[in-house]
Parts: sequence; C-alpha cells; structure tokens
Amino acid sequence: GDVAAGKAKSATCAACHGANGISQIPMYPNLAGQKEQYLVLQMKAFRDGERKNMVMSPMAKPLSDDDIANLAAFYASLDPAGK
Amino acid sequence: GDVAAGKAKSATCAACHGANGISQIPMYPNLAGQKEQYLVLQMKAFRDGERKNMVMSPMAKPLSDDDIANLAAFYASLDPAGK
Repeated sequence: GDVAAGKAKSATCAACHGANGISQIPMYPNLAGQKEQYLVLQMKAFRDGERKNMVMSPMAKPLSDDDIANLAAFYASLDPAGK
Repeated sequence: GDVAAGKAKSATCAACHGANGISQIPMYPNLAGQKEQYLVLQMKAFRDGERKNMVMSPMAKPLSDDDIANLAAFYASLDPAGK
C-alpha cells in the first residue's frame, strides 16, 4: 500500500489509535509498527463482518481495498515506540 | 496481572508471537507493548468464541482468567521495538 495515501486516510483513525499509532484508550490497540498483512486481515474482517466491534465495524465498512492497503502500509511504517 | 507468571505461561505463544513479542509471521500480530486491557479483551474473545481464528482459538481455550491477566501484563511490559 501507499504510506502517504494511508496517512491522509488516517485522520479519522487517529482519534482512537493516536496520530502516531499509539492509542490513548486502553481498550483500543496500538497500531504503530504492527504487521502490515495482519492489519489488512483485521480491517477486512471488520469490514466484512467476520470480526465485530461496535465502534470499529462502522469505521471499516466504507473502506475500499486500496484504503485498507494504504492504511496498513501507513501504520506498519510507524515507529512502534510512537516516536 | 503478574508479568513473571505471564512470561512463564508464554512459552507456547512465543512460537508465533516471538519471544520478544515481535511476530516472525506477517499474518500474526506483534504483541510487545500492546495495551494490556486490549490484550485481555482479545484473549477472552478468542477463548469465549466471540472472535474466531483457526490457530488462535484453540490456544486461548484452556486459559484461565489469571493466565490471561498475566499474559496481558507480560506482553504489555515488553519493549514495543522488541529490544
């Protein structure tokens, strides 16, 4: 995926997952430096209803495959320590 | 949870998630430095069938609440960069 396009798309995600991919909310996961393929699988699972969460499912619903690839590339590219 | 007890319990988990919590397998998530509460929620979801994965579900099945609390504390305590 395209990191820059993913960053642009991530504005909404930052509210829960943090602008640097480190979540401020204990129930929500850090995404910084996470495995790119794992992120793709989870976003698709939420989008397609295989994995359900009251907050995350509606967030994933409108995402295209390209959005998902770009967001995954973006978060995987972030420093896992959030710096 | 108890980090030392979690570390002892994590021997099986290390095969996929890495001894340092950084997975060697692109489909499996890094757990190092992840949010403790998020880890508890996911292990319980896998154990109780709310979240399903062919590999992870049987791993979570036998875990007690204490095991889960200890494993979550252990992985949350690890350096997110895996050092």
